[in-house]
Amino acid sequence: MKTHIEFTRTPISPPVPPAGTREVGAQVEFLGIVREMENSQPILGLFYEAHEPMARTQLEKILTELSSVHPCAEVWFIHRSGFVPVGEASLFIRVQSRHRQAALQLTAALIDRLKADVPIWKATAKPSNL
Amino acid sequence: MKTHIEFTRTPISPPVPPAGTREVGAQVEFLGIVREMENSQPILGLFYEAHEPMARTQLEKILTELSSVHPCAEVWFIHRSGFVPVGEASLFIRVQSRHRQAALQLTAALIDRLKADVPIWKATAKPSNL
Repeated sequence: MKTHIEFTRTPISPPVPPAGTREVGAQVEFLGIVREMENSQPILGLFYEAHEPMARTQLEKILTELSSVHPCAEVWFIHRSGFVPVGEASLFIRVQSRHRQAALQLTAALIDRLKADVPIWKATAKPSNL
Repeated sequence: MKTHIEFTRTPISPPVPPAGTREVGAQVEFLGIVREMENSQPILGLFYEAHEPMARTQLEKILTELSSVHPCAEVWFIHRSGFVPVGEASLFIRVQSRHRQAALQLTAALIDRLKADVPIWKATAKPSNL
């Protein structure tokens, strides 16, 4: 499985989807967007900090594991670091595969593993009057 | 849940994603793409034919059912009809929700139900020398 992993301090602009091979039957794209409430409190945004080399190594390892269960052709992973205001995406994932189930399942599993096993931390930015 | 259902005889161009509300934390987009092989035979493309009024009614019913299990904010569904060549998308789905699980699960369930319960048929276009 081909992988593209990127961290960026600027708004995510997903790369133009390639045509894919003629064997690709499904493409899933996921955006994780910062919501205005965190633990029932209004926030301005979230700060993300990644240990990039470790995160990258860990993501490659997770993707290798996941692709043996959910065979896919290509995966793109882009994560913001630094401040992400409410309404903007902190995470973009694109998965291309032959069959839809593999792409949908790999996407869901990758986000679960990301939250559990990848060194990316977040902190809340609250309005100063709270 | 807000729904947008469309059938088109021309290539699918997904509408520009709206900003969403500040409560939307996840967006899933799915493309179903015509592969070059169907039942181990090379094909030129697929012909899709929908009974549009019935398909639309059925989709609305399915989406109402699914949204009670997987609460989402808004769904876009675009399906090609007529000839779709290999490499082009026959189906586009976009789901926005507060939480990622609901969007991912509604997308997967909607495609399963589409294939089982919606009056859209397909036929294979094979190279004439086969």
